[in-house]
Amino acid sequence: MHDVVAALVRLLSRQPGVGKRSAERAALHLMRNKETHLLPLIETLRIVAERVVPCAECNNLDVANPCHICASDRRRQPKQICVVEDVSDLWAMERSGMYKGMYHVLGGTLSAAEGRGPEALGIPVLERRVRAGVAEEVILATSTTLEGQATAHYLADALERTGVSVTRLAQGVPIGGELCYLDEGTLVAALQARRRMAC
Amino acid sequence: MHDVVAALVRLLSRQPGVGKRSAERAALHLMRNKETHLLPLIETLRIVAERVVPCAECNNLDVANPCHICASDRRRQPKQICVVEDVSDLWAMERSGMYKGMYHVLGGTLSAAEGRGPEALGIPVLERRVRAGVAEEVILATSTTLEGQATAHYLADALERTGVSVTRLAQGVPIGGELCYLDEGTLVAALQARRRMAC
Repeated sequence: MHDVVAALVRLLSRQPGVGKRSAERAALHLMRNKETHLLPLIETLRIVAERVVPCAECNNLDVANPCHICASDRRRQPKQICVVEDVSDLWAMERSGMYKGMYHVLGGTLSAAEGRGPEALGIPVLERRVRAGVAEEVILATSTTLEGQATAHYLADALERTGVSVTRLAQGVPIGGELCYLDEGTLVAALQARRRMAC
Repeated sequence: MHDVVAALVRLLSRQPGVGKRSAERAALHLMRNKETHLLPLIETLRIVAERVVPCAECNNLDVANPCHICASDRRRQPKQICVVEDVSDLWAMERSGMYKGMYHVLGGTLSAAEGRGPEALGIPVLERRVRAGVAEEVILATSTTLEGQATAHYLADALERTGVSVTRLAQGVPIGGELCYLDEGTLVAALQARRRMAC
């Protein structure tokens, strides 16, 4: 394998979830399809590198700052702020079509091991924003992993002082989920939060 | 999601084995790490687009034509040609460190459904190369899938007329493989090709 190809494989395999073999297949696919895949990818990456910036308000990634969500607070609900770990979670919320409020993107979870404290997640910025703004509810939508739960608890404590209402996404059986495949933690949470059936 | 980001996700998800969610994660990872990941990737892709070409002799991909393997026939064994489906298979053979001969890269398998005939796989080129050259053995190293086996049979027939010796990689239990996880086809092949133990 030539150095140039090896360098491409190495760069591609630095993507999350892409192993060495997948990176090799991706590199070959790009090299075999120069006009239809490789050149358009270069052009798009170039535009992204040039134009995409983090939003100073919510830390979303967009070609505008403030991002299109923060900028459209008239057409959305500025009284709600949903806190997510990453932009991909914001995308998932948007896909649901259910949520019309604002966001705060943490960019990860609190981690002593990786040296990520409240500042790195923009939590002081969020607190100032809550104090200064019109938000009445902060919805914690971090993951239900250990780290996500710990971060949610930290946020609940930090935001309590601002007087805002802090809520957390419901935890339970996912829609379409089969009970036999569910872990005990999910079943415990689903049982504890059980609700009376409407007749 | 902005159009530019959506375009990047779409291009990334066109890689083999990369789904929509992985492409989203990869796009975010690139945008979050512009200096260390995005810009180096653009630069390397640009160099690859500019310099990598298929080898006219064997269809390998390299920055030289003929490729570095075809060009080094003095230091390698020109009497053997190993036929592989794709460049990734050539890389796997090279990693084994065992094979020192030349290659022919088909670029796929014969497929009536996808309209890939012998010409698309460079089989006439391979036949001419065998007739005109010094090759004494052609080793068929296509996959042991239905398509790979069919392609190997076609190649064996096509090359028989040239008088060259045509061989096929041995089929059996992979090293480190546990019998209980193996499919019946592999076990049948391994049984049929069983060999007496050396004492």
